[in-house]
Amino acid sequence: MATLLTRATDLSIARLAQDPACARGLAWIESSQAWVSDQHIRLTEVPAPEFGEKRRAELLQTILNGVGLTARIDETGNVIAERVGLQTDRVILLAAHLDTVFSAETNVRVRRDGKRLIAPGISDNGSGLAALVAVARAFVESSIRTDATIVFAGDVGEEGEGNLRGIRALVEAYGPRLAAVIAIDGPSTTHITTQGVASKRFEIKIAGPGGHSWSDFGAPNPITAISRGIVQFSSVRVPDTPRSSYNFGVVQGGTSVNSIPDEALVKVDLRSETEAELSRLETTLRDAMQAGLTAEISARRASAGSLQMHVRSLGARPAGKLPENSSLLQAIRDVDRFLGNSSRSESSSTDANLPLSMKIPAVSLGGGGKGGGAHTLAEWYDPSGRELGVRRLFLLTTALAGLQQ
Amino acid sequence: MATLLTRATDLSIARLAQDPACARGLAWIESSQAWVSDQHIRLTEVPAPEFGEKRRAELLQTILNGVGLTARIDETGNVIAERVGLQTDRVILLAAHLDTVFSAETNVRVRRDGKRLIAPGISDNGSGLAALVAVARAFVESSIRTDATIVFAGDVGEEGEGNLRGIRALVEAYGPRLAAVIAIDGPSTTHITTQGVASKRFEIKIAGPGGHSWSDFGAPNPITAISRGIVQFSSVRVPDTPRSSYNFGVVQGGTSVNSIPDEALVKVDLRSETEAELSRLETTLRDAMQAGLTAEISARRASAGSLQMHVRSLGARPAGKLPENSSLLQAIRDVDRFLGNSSRSESSSTDANLPLSMKIPAVSLGGGGKGGGAHTLAEWYDPSGRELGVRRLFLLTTALAGLQQ
Repeated sequence: MATLLTRATDLSIARLAQDPACARGLAWIESSQAWVSDQHIRLTEVPAPEFGEKRRAELLQTILNGVGLTARIDETGNVIAERVGLQTDRVILLAAHLDTVFSAETNVRVRRDGKRLIAPGISDNGSGLAALVAVARAFVESSIRTDATIVFAGDVGEEGEGNLRGIRALVEAYGPRLAAVIAIDGPSTTHITTQGVASKRFEIKIAGPGGHSWSDFGAPNPITAISRGIVQFSSVRVPDTPRSSYNFGVVQGGTSVNSIPDEALVKVDLRSETEAELSRLETTLRDAMQAGLTAEISARRASAGSLQMHVRSLGARPAGKLPENSSLLQAIRDVDRFLGNSSRSESSSTDANLPLSMKIPAVSLGGGGKGGGAHTLAEWYDPSGRELGVRRLFLLTTALAGLQQ
Repeated sequence: MATLLTRATDLSIARLAQDPACARGLAWIESSQAWVSDQHIRLTEVPAPEFGEKRRAELLQTILNGVGLTARIDETGNVIAERVGLQTDRVILLAAHLDTVFSAETNVRVRRDGKRLIAPGISDNGSGLAALVAVARAFVESSIRTDATIVFAGDVGEEGEGNLRGIRALVEAYGPRLAAVIAIDGPSTTHITTQGVASKRFEIKIAGPGGHSWSDFGAPNPITAISRGIVQFSSVRVPDTPRSSYNFGVVQGGTSVNSIPDEALVKVDLRSETEAELSRLETTLRDAMQAGLTAEISARRASAGSLQMHVRSLGARPAGKLPENSSLLQAIRDVDRFLGNSSRSESSSTDANLPLSMKIPAVSLGGGGKGGGAHTLAEWYDPSGRELGVRRLFLLTTALAGLQQ
């Protein structure tokens, strides 16, 4: 694996910022917030559901080409633009995920409410994509020449059932040349995601004989069985340390109000900072759903048929943690000190999980500004402070890549 | 309201059967089972989901026209063919519902397994439609001239959320001229549905703030709230007398495994032989769903937002019962005695509910043969004994309509 430069210092960040090329980049950032906002809105208004990121990817490709880079779309659907440095065997990857949790039919038109922009996906990950194109253009405008090669990528499959397939393809493609991965996800500049929360996602389906709501009354009902399992599992104690969570994200079953459904399913997301706790949650979930099935059968007519449960994995994200003494984390702290930005480390489930699980230095950072309501239709973004986020990413990338002497 | 003739007797049924025209009709029935089976399969293989009956209606219209009647489709979507008698102010309505509980995408191709035909909707109501066209053609082939006008109808909206809109339109159109309504539903010749079970159908939706499965963990989840309500209601005691039932037929909620859903809904069917018990079940259901919502909020972070419940009616079917001493029921018993068929009265929810609730003599009868698995993908039909069902309907209709002297 390519190594990072030895530790930057805040002194060296100050010196970096005074380099004429670097200063041009910072000046461009200062003067170009309107352009960045325009790209942000354009990207957000193209639907990008899981497994349906193509149109947004093509728009990002167009924007990156327009900026003066040469962008291509790989087989997985990722948009990739390289800015080749003196070294082609040392790569700094900046990646913002293209996909959202919303369906293709969701209205993604951006509304304004005072300073706020409101639309599904405007923060997660419209703001990350906006920061990506802003940093990419800042590099072009600055004419900085770096030692390492910088790769700007919009990647697919970060959300839901995408199972990190986009970032996985990128990490596999660049392999040992990767010196650091910076995922740009959401707006926050006060958090540095240094720990990848482990997660497992399941679809649990219960099937039965079905029937007529009146003449077959007393037959076991898969909807009721699933409900019993959900209620049973919801009494589980989820620890604060290691921080853990669960979510019943999707439920569906049945075709008609007066038919006993022959099938119902629920999609579940389990997460934990440790693999051990995640494993405990998985066992508890499987037991609870099985108990729900058994309870439903005992509550019904003995002769009325049985139920079967099928558990399917929708993906697993490995855990991983950036060591406290890593050069990458030190560089972020130096940049933050120089910019007067205060931030703290946290755990989350992002594109950074994948490289972290492979011991590749990686973080997830926000693109600047403020946001909220992620994964809801009321999602919002306020661009105040976006400049800080973009300057931070620009300086960090320059420091990691190294200026050509 | 037009009145039925005074009671037929089994003696008079025997005499009726010997009438030359009537005998021609019976002979045609005996020789034409292959044709009936062909129409049965053709009709079943055209999807007819709730609110999507049009293509099947057009095929039924074609078949009735081919038989020598003149069929039209009314504004509601019902297919109607009249065979005018001496009296146009006395109408016997034979109606078989066109719709199924299956979606437009369901594979409705008919498979054979020995004597059995297997397909969704093959019995409910493919067999009713087959009997309808068989009886209609038997009348044409017999050249019988009846006193009353006979109306053959394929009606929409019997299943699920159709809310009996097809039969309602027919009953409204013929108004006081209706002397009797015979719904043909399913195959059974051993049951006479003389009691319309009252039913109410609801969609219960729970909405909340939604959110991100990790960062918003602890927010109330509408899927879990609905599940708590379903489990709570499922502990209710449903009486055997009056016979009653409930069904959670459809559940859906959420868009992505890693988003806390902002909405979930369940569709519920409640039925009872008495309006009083139905009303008690409705109150229990509303209380249980509200309790589920409250329990979900108390189990979550107090600051994490609230949930709202919305209950929407998907329709209500009135109860109704054919009096034990009605001429219609006596005529069926006389026909059954003549044919050596044993049958008993039962309660169900069919197109007959509507006229029964308006005190119009009505029953639901099967079209003959055997069937099972109604409302499931494994639904089957065995034509053995279909002839009996068709002869029974033909003789009953002739007896009710009266032969022109």
